[in-house]
Amino acid sequence: MSEQPSPPYYAVIFSSIRTDDNEGYAQTIEHMMDLGLKHPGCLGLESVSEDDRGISVSYWKDLDSIKSWKQVADHITAQKMGREKWYKSYTTRIALVEREYSFEKP
Amino acid sequence: MSEQPSPPYYAVIFSSIRTDDNEGYAQTIEHMMDLGLKHPGCLGLESVSEDDRGISVSYWKDLDSIKSWKQVADHITAQKMGREKWYKSYTTRIALVEREYSFEKP
Repeated sequence: MSEQPSPPYYAVIFSSIRTDDNEGYAQTIEHMMDLGLKHPGCLGLESVSEDDRGISVSYWKDLDSIKSWKQVADHITAQKMGREKWYKSYTTRIALVEREYSFEKP
Repeated sequence: MSEQPSPPYYAVIFSSIRTDDNEGYAQTIEHMMDLGLKHPGCLGLESVSEDDRGISVSYWKDLDSIKSWKQVADHITAQKMGREKWYKSYTTRIALVEREYSFEKP
């Protein structure tokens, strides 16, 4: 995360399984990461991909920020492309982060 | 996830950056996945790794299940090994899943 806010805040957990069609995928993800991070209320984004599986988690100040991010035009287009081309299946979960703890090697 | 329970339930989001020391890491993760899935209250586990970054999310019926999983002897040993050898840094977040939606290609 780019910042370390204190809970409570929201996490959107997006876990996906991709198709073999990767055309335009990497560029769109990069563009979405850039846009998302600039979106009001976004506290951070992280995304990890292994073979055809991916988990992305974005962190948000509140539910209104998540709602308005979902309605950004480029993001709507990306979601449509995702369903038509890139994803075999995915699940999105909206979760309220109640507690967090971090470890950093001394 | 192995099951699809309805919210509310809990997610533990574990995001990590690893050191170069991978000795015993893969075997321990596999063992922890096996053990975790059998633990009472565990609804599912998913883990994705890319280069030195990883995101694992486990899903739980309630906070008590998370607490008792944290206290399993093999898991305590694995956490200790993680801090001593495998992880440069990590953050664990406990979050209440309020909503979820899934997509599956027709």
